[in-house]
Amino acid sequence: MWRHLDYDSCPDSSRFPENSPLDTPLAPLSLEHRLLSMPPVRALQLRLVGSDRDSLRLAAPLAPNINDKGNAFGGSLASVMTLAAWALVSTRLEAAGHEADVYVQDSTVHYLKPLYDDLLAEARLAPGQDWDEVLALFAHRGKTRALMQAEIRAANGEICCTLEGRFVALRGQG
Amino acid sequence: MWRHLDYDSCPDSSRFPENSPLDTPLAPLSLEHRLLSMPPVRALQLRLVGSDRDSLRLAAPLAPNINDKGNAFGGSLASVMTLAAWALVSTRLEAAGHEADVYVQDSTVHYLKPLYDDLLAEARLAPGQDWDEVLALFAHRGKTRALMQAEIRAANGEICCTLEGRFVALRGQG
Repeated sequence: MWRHLDYDSCPDSSRFPENSPLDTPLAPLSLEHRLLSMPPVRALQLRLVGSDRDSLRLAAPLAPNINDKGNAFGGSLASVMTLAAWALVSTRLEAAGHEADVYVQDSTVHYLKPLYDDLLAEARLAPGQDWDEVLALFAHRGKTRALMQAEIRAANGEICCTLEGRFVALRGQG
Repeated sequence: MWRHLDYDSCPDSSRFPENSPLDTPLAPLSLEHRLLSMPPVRALQLRLVGSDRDSLRLAAPLAPNINDKGNAFGGSLASVMTLAAWALVSTRLEAAGHEADVYVQDSTVHYLKPLYDDLLAEARLAPGQDWDEVLALFAHRGKTRALMQAEIRAANGEICCTLEGRFVALRGQG
């Protein structure tokens, strides 16, 4: 059920394969559309740049997310990391055929260095967690949890900030 | 040096006393102007609704900060709480005559309930912390830390989310 997507970080639509079946649960345009339906996410100018089974990457340009010191605003860094983790949990559940509402329960962010580049966040499951268990629990109980990690690196590879957060998924109402 | 400001939560300019000396370090319009110089903060439609010696309150309307479930987007909640804490540290240092750059070092956010009202965050120093010590350390070393707390309540008084974060202040470059 999980389609391997490995786009480059090019912002234009060429990152979507021409014959991509966009009506599948994992359709990247569908995820991006859902994210961009939220006004605060549109303000970030967020876009999906890639995902595979174990990670998902979201990007946002620096300009709309800049602070008064000329680097990336902490709130935008936290938002993009949170959304990357949320999107990965959501797409993994969808790919397993589940209709779920995913919520962030809590998160801790460490701001390590200022970021003067565009924002590129990558999210994955935290060490010690297992997707099979996360998905099996949802299938069994209609509810599950996932401890997620995300990070944003500068263009030179240095880690600028990290997030660790607990996400909860509940059976969808719809 | 600290001017007691206790506005009501009215969003219009009537919250600023007509004879307010706006060129003082604590001038609320100056703080609001500095906050709104950041594009991501303008996107939040943030405004200062009040402050006193020990707390500072920032607000943002729900509409530009709504998620796909019709309640407040987690990233906006975290941003408004972080900014309230940042603004309180900044204004306390300014009020003491210090030119400081204030940074958030890390923060933990707990999302307790969805918020269906406008966002109103209140920040204060965490229990066990003392402003006199925070300010004295800055005066002595040109660097200090403050552990801050912030929360957002629904209109009915229920706490929807909390933040605890460490902030660092360094002697300003300017």
